[in-house]
Amino acid sequence: MATAGKVIRCKAAVAWEPNKPLVMEEIEVAPPQANEVRIKIVATGVCHTDLYHLFEGMHKDGFPVVLGHEGAGIVESVGTGVTEFQPGDKVIPLFISQCRECRFCKSPKTNQCVKGWAADRYDVMALEETRLTCKGKKLLQFLGTSTFSEYTVLNQIAVAKIDPAAPLDKVCLLGCGVCTGFGAAVNTAKVTGSTCAVFGLGAVGLAAVMGCKAAGAQRIIAVDINPEKFEKAKVFGATEFVNPKDHSRPISQVLAEMTDGGVDFSLECVGNVGVMRSALESCVKGWGVSVLVGWTDLQDFAARPIQLIAGRTWKGTLFGGFKGKDGVPEMVKAYLDKKVKLDEFITHNMTLDQVNDAVKLMKNGHFAHLHLRCTLNVVFYSVRFSHILCRSNEQNSLIFPDQITTSATLRSV
Amino acid sequence: MATAGKVIRCKAAVAWEPNKPLVMEEIEVAPPQANEVRIKIVATGVCHTDLYHLFEGMHKDGFPVVLGHEGAGIVESVGTGVTEFQPGDKVIPLFISQCRECRFCKSPKTNQCVKGWAADRYDVMALEETRLTCKGKKLLQFLGTSTFSEYTVLNQIAVAKIDPAAPLDKVCLLGCGVCTGFGAAVNTAKVTGSTCAVFGLGAVGLAAVMGCKAAGAQRIIAVDINPEKFEKAKVFGATEFVNPKDHSRPISQVLAEMTDGGVDFSLECVGNVGVMRSALESCVKGWGVSVLVGWTDLQDFAARPIQLIAGRTWKGTLFGGFKGKDGVPEMVKAYLDKKVKLDEFITHNMTLDQVNDAVKLMKNGHFAHLHLRCTLNVVFYSVRFSHILCRSNEQNSLIFPDQITTSATLRSV
Repeated sequence: MATAGKVIRCKAAVAWEPNKPLVMEEIEVAPPQANEVRIKIVATGVCHTDLYHLFEGMHKDGFPVVLGHEGAGIVESVGTGVTEFQPGDKVIPLFISQCRECRFCKSPKTNQCVKGWAADRYDVMALEETRLTCKGKKLLQFLGTSTFSEYTVLNQIAVAKIDPAAPLDKVCLLGCGVCTGFGAAVNTAKVTGSTCAVFGLGAVGLAAVMGCKAAGAQRIIAVDINPEKFEKAKVFGATEFVNPKDHSRPISQVLAEMTDGGVDFSLECVGNVGVMRSALESCVKGWGVSVLVGWTDLQDFAARPIQLIAGRTWKGTLFGGFKGKDGVPEMVKAYLDKKVKLDEFITHNMTLDQVNDAVKLMKNGHFAHLHLRCTLNVVFYSVRFSHILCRSNEQNSLIFPDQITTSATLRSV
Repeated sequence: MATAGKVIRCKAAVAWEPNKPLVMEEIEVAPPQANEVRIKIVATGVCHTDLYHLFEGMHKDGFPVVLGHEGAGIVESVGTGVTEFQPGDKVIPLFISQCRECRFCKSPKTNQCVKGWAADRYDVMALEETRLTCKGKKLLQFLGTSTFSEYTVLNQIAVAKIDPAAPLDKVCLLGCGVCTGFGAAVNTAKVTGSTCAVFGLGAVGLAAVMGCKAAGAQRIIAVDINPEKFEKAKVFGATEFVNPKDHSRPISQVLAEMTDGGVDFSLECVGNVGVMRSALESCVKGWGVSVLVGWTDLQDFAARPIQLIAGRTWKGTLFGGFKGKDGVPEMVKAYLDKKVKLDEFITHNMTLDQVNDAVKLMKNGHFAHLHLRCTLNVVFYSVRFSHILCRSNEQNSLIFPDQITTSATLRSV
């Protein structure tokens, strides 16, 4: 590659400070160092966790940052010591690494690798590890990835190589939301043929519905305060639909009555501590399992001790429990084999230049979802903005034909 | 039996109202109705849950009540339809029934029978179900049992028949505390050869230590603010000892440093929501399992969502997950086979007449445990007052020789 070993200047959406629009900037992406991989991002989803960092978390040490963590791309060059990847490989950046060497990677019980950037933080890569710079300032890499950039650099332990046949503008969703929801049901809850409830029908929740179905659940009760999402949930496998606004009783009582005491599995896909409590209380005593899938760290989640003492189990999941290097390629294959849906999650296609419109749409959807009856056709969690074209100005010659030609929505940036 | 079919007048310790001493009264115990068993209580432990009802819970509808739920006795007579028991059988009353017919009893996952008194409450049997009366007033049966009485009546689904060779003044402890702690480790946490922490070294906590050891744990870290308990914990299998008062850092940090990131299993045996949080946070991310064993329903337990999202599991246990009719006789056998310790839990022997002294001792131990450095040799959780002789005045002729003759501490009441 002509760019290998050189700094690449390209476009990125920079979040200079919390609660402000992103700014399209020309940034510098350093060459990959030892064990690192530089990736040309081809497509990225916009996940609520990006907005969370910008508008809710707003950690003081988390800016300036390049957001985006649900992407897919192509290896541009590799650093010394990298043998697993070569330029041209299709890859998905992983916000949870898989070093294959630590005791966590060696255990089948968890995907919590200790060697990655996320070992002891949950928002941005350490400043000394980022390879992105703008106007002389280091830019933090959100969740270690930064897919709202035409190029990014990750350690090879945080990159999954995927099938060359995979359409990147679809499989990018496997970089976060779809794996998270699907895996929450399959890997974390370990749903078996039984009754499930999924709280929150965004992309993660819909993926959880899909996971419950794949795991053989007989009844999948979809819960959302926006009934317009129910039709979509049906596509993914939901069998019943409950709008808490239709009931004056607590939703846990409603579900208990529908299911003779409560569901076997509940999945909280909102990231709201009140919903977390409801989801736990909606489980049947004795063996009910509730899983936290949605993300928040602003408040405690809580419940009465008897809820657990009576035999319920409370778990949580990050990235659906998938070990990235193993799980993501498998999910890509499942998509190519038509065992997992992805296209149905995508409601809008925009360009990287339009990222603020995408953020705004999701943000408005978000608040509509939580507080209002929303009239948007698909809102918040189910909004995924894929296909943000990432092509650096200098690299017009760097053509990846399948990407350029396969999408009618592709635009020049 | 001369008493079969007749009302028995006998002694019981009645709690007429919350936060007051118990009153020794002569009560009437009705004959067992269909499917019921009348039991002559021979020995009972005093568990903190009895005190909890009296001094902390103080539910307005929970009085007057006969406390005591950790007992052992001998069948005096049975109602129609009872074929499993006959007079003279040694039994342990169960505060969780096992009907063997409901979907919970049929599942190996839980001991939460739906047919028992406790199906939808967690303190006292319904008024219409109690067979105890005093001065014309119905007395509630605490946890469906009421072992602070010379006689009590239970449905046959809430009685476990045990080995005739079992010494009742020891195996009574299997009616609650020891099964609860032991089972929390073995049945609920499902400890495997690994590192465990037990918070709170009362009888339940010490039994949990014993359970961890039986399950093959390699390291068992005993945590208590009263270091005088550590010697006892060693007897039951603890390998390390931590007094939170010796550290200025949170106990979860101390344990994380001792264990390279946290313990595999933690058991909260105090019933304090702050300790519940610490116990969860002391678990290693990825696969740590924390179990609520101690009882409280006065406050929510809580934690940050990331604690679960990072891969920890929060569970709870009631009676250690044991199905009573199956599990209690097995534990009795384990005691007779010297695989489970019981004698070591017993620090005081008193009579039923002395029940207020026992309550006072435990209560003082309780507060000492929580707030002071206690100089009692064994306090609070490890205090079990067994061998409260229960013999009705009218029933001097009802002799059970092994009970009368085997204990030097037996006193006439």
